[in-house]
Amino acid sequence: MPFEIKASEKAKRTVNPIRAIVDKVLAGPPSTCPLKRIPLSLGDPTHFGNLLPPSLLTSSLQDCASSHKFDGYVPAFGCPNLRKSVAESFSSENVKYTDDDVVVASGCSGALELLLTGLLNPGQNILVPKPGFPLYEVIAVSHGCTVKYYNLNPSDNWNVDLNSLESAFDSNTVGVLINNPSNPCGSVFSKSHLKQIIEVCEKHNTMVIGDEVYGGMVFEGSEYNSLAEVSAEMGGTVPVVSCSGMAKQYLVPGMRVGWLTFYGPGLEELKGGVKSLSQVVLGACHLAQEASSRALDDGCEEFKKELNLKLQTQAGALESGLKGCHGLTVIKPEGAMYTMVKINVEEFKDIANDIEFTKMLLDEKNVFALPGTCFGIENFFRAVYCAPVEMLEEAGVRIKEFCEDHKM
Amino acid sequence: MPFEIKASEKAKRTVNPIRAIVDKVLAGPPSTCPLKRIPLSLGDPTHFGNLLPPSLLTSSLQDCASSHKFDGYVPAFGCPNLRKSVAESFSSENVKYTDDDVVVASGCSGALELLLTGLLNPGQNILVPKPGFPLYEVIAVSHGCTVKYYNLNPSDNWNVDLNSLESAFDSNTVGVLINNPSNPCGSVFSKSHLKQIIEVCEKHNTMVIGDEVYGGMVFEGSEYNSLAEVSAEMGGTVPVVSCSGMAKQYLVPGMRVGWLTFYGPGLEELKGGVKSLSQVVLGACHLAQEASSRALDDGCEEFKKELNLKLQTQAGALESGLKGCHGLTVIKPEGAMYTMVKINVEEFKDIANDIEFTKMLLDEKNVFALPGTCFGIENFFRAVYCAPVEMLEEAGVRIKEFCEDHKM
Ligand SMILES: Cc1ncc(COP(=O)(O)O)c(C=O)c1O
Ligand SMILES: Cc1ncc(COP(=O)(O)O)c(C=O)c1O
Repeated sequence: MPFEIKASEKAKRTVNPIRAIVDKVLAGPPSTCPLKRIPLSLGDPTHFGNLLPPSLLTSSLQDCASSHKFDGYVPAFGCPNLRKSVAESFSSENVKYTDDDVVVASGCSGALELLLTGLLNPGQNILVPKPGFPLYEVIAVSHGCTVKYYNLNPSDNWNVDLNSLESAFDSNTVGVLINNPSNPCGSVFSKSHLKQIIEVCEKHNTMVIGDEVYGGMVFEGSEYNSLAEVSAEMGGTVPVVSCSGMAKQYLVPGMRVGWLTFYGPGLEELKGGVKSLSQVVLGACHLAQEASSRALDDGCEEFKKELNLKLQTQAGALESGLKGCHGLTVIKPEGAMYTMVKINVEEFKDIANDIEFTKMLLDEKNVFALPGTCFGIENFFRAVYCAPVEMLEEAGVRIKEFCEDHKM
Repeated sequence: MPFEIKASEKAKRTVNPIRAIVDKVLAGPPSTCPLKRIPLSLGDPTHFGNLLPPSLLTSSLQDCASSHKFDGYVPAFGCPNLRKSVAESFSSENVKYTDDDVVVASGCSGALELLLTGLLNPGQNILVPKPGFPLYEVIAVSHGCTVKYYNLNPSDNWNVDLNSLESAFDSNTVGVLINNPSNPCGSVFSKSHLKQIIEVCEKHNTMVIGDEVYGGMVFEGSEYNSLAEVSAEMGGTVPVVSCSGMAKQYLVPGMRVGWLTFYGPGLEELKGGVKSLSQVVLGACHLAQEASSRALDDGCEEFKKELNLKLQTQAGALESGLKGCHGLTVIKPEGAMYTMVKINVEEFKDIANDIEFTKMLLDEKNVFALPGTCFGIENFFRAVYCAPVEMLEEAGVRIKEFCEDHKM
């Protein structure tokens, strides 16, 4: 009998939905456009070479390698120095983390996976934002769970539509995922809005899962408040488990260093479960963890200020290009690295939806942006502003021409 | 209502059995022994500082960090260079791997976890060696599966007891895990023995899962043959998925770089499933992957030869100390970093079992070895010979005194 090895049901359930959508955009003959490709699609801030990590981080990696002190195994919950650094740098007047409240994982993705594995039983669900980062659903579904969506409202700076949040809860809901600053929206919630969200969670006795991987990456006029901080100011009765990491704030997504922080009451069993799970695979690269610890201890404040300024400038360059475009509505980004642009399809003569828009834009102008459908919302496109200013300006020019060519 | 967040059933099932056993050994007041602790318990070869990774690997890590070419995300299945290096360095006359046959993961543990997640449905089982590395069971049980044991025979150089292997299969068996060279036994299977094992797997139409993280780490007089190679020589009808990594062969367990290699027929669906799963967390540190690729491309043959010689010398130092001990039976180690020593409890006046032996040895002589019970077999202890020769000699002296003190 010839061998025919079957994959597990779990593997079959684990499907990245973006792939199939992107394949539609890329389908057909390759673009014959003579212009150079401008990828506004990539969530990797290091792609263009204009954004480099803090030099302290790079030199720490080198020192750690040559010292040979970090060749060996690292404890499963994470390198003690890094857990301490995370606990200290995320603590505040109101929120006191100890090392024990921190679990290190393989990137923020690994942290999310660890947390949701520790939390979810088949049949349960978590509430996630729409539009939102698709990984939440991938992980939930891989566990035989589902996500239910609450809406972010583009007419209200992508704030949470509290009615839709209220009505998304059911008796199987075990967590509300809040991503702030937001991928794909580039929005930043105000403190008062975060309070409104947390109030709803409290009313439904449901914990908050924070995805704060873009924490602190905000532009002039916006302020970043962590979910734990806001929960603390409200009395600290609502537990918040947040994931974050080095990927975006320190421009080293390849390092795969992320973590969970546990704040608030009633989390002991979950934390214990997550720690048990973390022992199976032994997390992130030891020297990367130690170098991360040193960067967090330093704070790299100058670097972070400059990074935010650069991103804000780049966001502005893209925004002003897009603002003049026929048929597009731009919502000013306030942080992270993204903006979601509305495509008013009724203002175009031959474009039916976001998939067609992004596909034709790629074919005709060699500018690649992801359709909103990748993030659960139609007739938007997401543009990343990690590219250098000139490239973003060029993208604006091309998109403008494209919109003119197709206007009703 | 106060919050009380529950952990998932999966988290509750994920328990490392070694912890509870080690806690028994460590229970009670701390040792008052004035001698310095000799830990023969640690599977971390870098602990003592006498075993350093190849300098090429260290300098590659530094170069990769400073180049900034590896700050960014790495493809989910692994860095293309590393997949290519693994495919090339593991290929032979008979076994041809392509890049597509390699999936990178977070250490060999991560590779095992990925593979078993891609393979196992609740209620199924895999066959694992006894004594053996406990992680197999931890992972299987975390998936709602079980392991069934086949015996390794200490009277036959820890070869597989083929009758016990035969009788372990049932209709829910989906894989046979073979760990060669062995942790905890330090044994190396001959080619003809591997053929016998694979024949049994073929008869039961069951795939082979190879744990070859100690591949090539063998001493004079032994020869390492990979499971894929042996399957190929038998006609290549039995599929073999092997896990390995940088941890032991290159002395960098903290780097968390491991991989799976897929060989043989009928594996397409499983490989696809594993690749889907690998997209959730995005594997190992990018610069560690690239540095690993360079080390594999180089081969580091001199380094490996020297490492094997050092380990053999250290194994010999420990062995000759233990050989003279009352009540112990030493089985000559042939590879890896371990030896399992038989405790003939009937020859001791006041030691009932391996847990008591290791506990009393720790209390009285401050030598720490893990009881065989950690690996599923009673009345053995596992000793690691990664420590420097003098320390291993000193351990031998102390163990000898200990055995004299307690002899019947
Ligand atoms: C909202 C959000 N969460 C999590 C992640 C994953 O981050 P990491 O690269 O640390 O796994 C990303 C990456 O793009 C993200 O956008
Ligand atoms: C037999 C065996 N397999 C797998 C592993 C895990 O290796 P890694 O450190 O690459 O996860 C070990 C580590 O001790 C081992 O002994």
